[in-house]
Amino acid sequence: MTATAIADLNPSPRILLGPGPSNVHPRVLRAMATPLVGHLDPEFIEIMNETKALLQYVFQTKNSLTIPISGTGTAGMEAALYNLIEENDEVVVAVNGFFGERMCDMVHRCRGNLVKLEVPWGQVFALEQIEEILKKKVKLLAIVHAETSTGALQPVEEIAKLCHRYGVLLVLDTVTSLGGVPVEVDRWDIDACYSGTQKCLSCPPGLAPITLGPRAMEALRSRQTKVQSLYLDLTMIEKYWGQERTYHHTAPISMNYALREALRLVQEEGLEARFARHRLNHRALVAGIQAMGLEMFVPGPHRLPTMNTVKVPPGIDEARVRGILLHEFNIEIAGGLGPLKGVIWRIGLMGHSSRKENVLLLLTALEHALATQGYAVPRGAGVEAAGKVYLQG
Amino acid sequence: MTATAIADLNPSPRILLGPGPSNVHPRVLRAMATPLVGHLDPEFIEIMNETKALLQYVFQTKNSLTIPISGTGTAGMEAALYNLIEENDEVVVAVNGFFGERMCDMVHRCRGNLVKLEVPWGQVFALEQIEEILKKKVKLLAIVHAETSTGALQPVEEIAKLCHRYGVLLVLDTVTSLGGVPVEVDRWDIDACYSGTQKCLSCPPGLAPITLGPRAMEALRSRQTKVQSLYLDLTMIEKYWGQERTYHHTAPISMNYALREALRLVQEEGLEARFARHRLNHRALVAGIQAMGLEMFVPGPHRLPTMNTVKVPPGIDEARVRGILLHEFNIEIAGGLGPLKGVIWRIGLMGHSSRKENVLLLLTALEHALATQGYAVPRGAGVEAAGKVYLQG
Repeated sequence: MTATAIADLNPSPRILLGPGPSNVHPRVLRAMATPLVGHLDPEFIEIMNETKALLQYVFQTKNSLTIPISGTGTAGMEAALYNLIEENDEVVVAVNGFFGERMCDMVHRCRGNLVKLEVPWGQVFALEQIEEILKKKVKLLAIVHAETSTGALQPVEEIAKLCHRYGVLLVLDTVTSLGGVPVEVDRWDIDACYSGTQKCLSCPPGLAPITLGPRAMEALRSRQTKVQSLYLDLTMIEKYWGQERTYHHTAPISMNYALREALRLVQEEGLEARFARHRLNHRALVAGIQAMGLEMFVPGPHRLPTMNTVKVPPGIDEARVRGILLHEFNIEIAGGLGPLKGVIWRIGLMGHSSRKENVLLLLTALEHALATQGYAVPRGAGVEAAGKVYLQG
Repeated sequence: MTATAIADLNPSPRILLGPGPSNVHPRVLRAMATPLVGHLDPEFIEIMNETKALLQYVFQTKNSLTIPISGTGTAGMEAALYNLIEENDEVVVAVNGFFGERMCDMVHRCRGNLVKLEVPWGQVFALEQIEEILKKKVKLLAIVHAETSTGALQPVEEIAKLCHRYGVLLVLDTVTSLGGVPVEVDRWDIDACYSGTQKCLSCPPGLAPITLGPRAMEALRSRQTKVQSLYLDLTMIEKYWGQERTYHHTAPISMNYALREALRLVQEEGLEARFARHRLNHRALVAGIQAMGLEMFVPGPHRLPTMNTVKVPPGIDEARVRGILLHEFNIEIAGGLGPLKGVIWRIGLMGHSSRKENVLLLLTALEHALATQGYAVPRGAGVEAAGKVYLQG
């Protein structure tokens, strides 16, 4: 390709029901288009303070180091792990999906001693299994709250208690939960927690909210060696976001504008109402899916309302179904990752995408797409079942 | 601060003449406000291909791995160094300012054996000095093309020849040069080169364009150990930007929209015209500054047109002058970093900020601000001198 004939930007109006990004509220898009101030401007420093306060609200924490990392969710994962792990530290990673595997890779890269705890993808961990391993000399346990690759929601409150009984730091991945299902950092006593902006916060991708509690801060401050990434070094970033305002990197101004506006929207809706909305749309979707004779991948009690995984029926070309949804209905859903490729669809109902009209349109479109593949559904069965859920509320 | 009373976003209309961000063109702001598609959407993949072609144009290269890293310039610096350096590699860093020092820090963090080559801040390196050190067994030389902290422009074409005579990889920091002064990656034969979006490209901060040539790609492919950052691992990112489109991280969609539009603007103007514009505004500013009896920090031949450093006259409170510019004229300029704190002002004329009206307003405002500090300038002397440069063209 030569660079000579590149046209005006004119993307199709997608309904984003994949694993993120979710659809972005027009107010957030407008915030992104606001002219920039400098990254050390007193007005930007005020915006940083406001963003921090709003992040404390969604994380439900008073932690002072509660800020957006200037990268996507994966950068947040690296920041949490690399700042808390030093060479030869004993680290347990609980793996039940793609992002648990990714944390293992990172532990190797920062030279921690990895102990991998596994259950099959889609399942969650039992307390007993975790306690067994914490009895050994462990510094840190990393676990995914909401596995984007499987749609499973891991209960963590009791795990946190267990960790602290054994003097272990708990690092929690809340990329697909923050702002969509409860994440109560202080009440659950989570030591470090990170997320992404493009999921249930419905801000464009590009920032990774992170929060560190007192035990994690102490671990950070008592490091013997420098953090292996300067870009993600929280001992430096803390000074940029703190009183000192020491230059560390040029904050992504427009992305911070966007995050601030997305968080204001969360606050205006209120966390409880927001969680209830995500639950309701999830219940309606599941009712519709099941009425169409399809099966959910994750058993009822551990289903994530924000990321719905549906088994692909035998004989169906799942990529073709996604292609029809995208090209004929402008709807994006995702396929499975790794061992779940071809096995499941992933339907995100996150943030501004978690709306009744999206659920009803998706069920209609999916019925049509499946019919073209020879999978017959009684006409309108999905929409009718979902509609009943909405009527009952 | 509580999160309860956070008002609509309403920043002041700043004229950004600091070290970045520079002012962003309205077309780029509009691109940022475009609704999102998914990061694996065929339409986004087309946008990635277009962005790559446009980056090849500004880097003046055919290198296939020419992409934006999903972080700011500092992430670009880490990506270049961490992908090419392994433990115990001999690495020479040429230090003549803040960002050279930063590269040294990163070499330590990725366990390279650092050899630090120094000249005083504001000066540039002579060929002889560099050749001397390359005769030893060195893998890589890292040097800053345009030192944002000092305003010095390092000639690099002959250094590149020298490096390849001794089998050394050359990594070049072009954060404050790309799109403002010539950066000819292929003709100069630079092995790896990174930049930031918020300087002469006049896109908001948040991405770091990077390009790797054949020798660098070979070094990357023949690594014995994994890159220490997964987020910045170019062996993985290459697959996301290449034919495979393997998921690596969620690309910052809106920032990529913005970069694409900013690069289209560069292409519409044309590189030669753009460089000429930066040179003209620089010459006008320097004429004005000198007519006001002020002195440039960097000697004539090595002055960077995009970042102009001016000595603070004795007895002047430089921070107060900047405060007057910001609060009374909405103009941002910057102070010095490290040993140059209190010694210089840094005046960026980059991308969309490099305009005649900005130069003339700044000279007027500076005259006023200096007068309040007891530094008298013949009325209008700066503007008159700058005006003459514009008349002559």
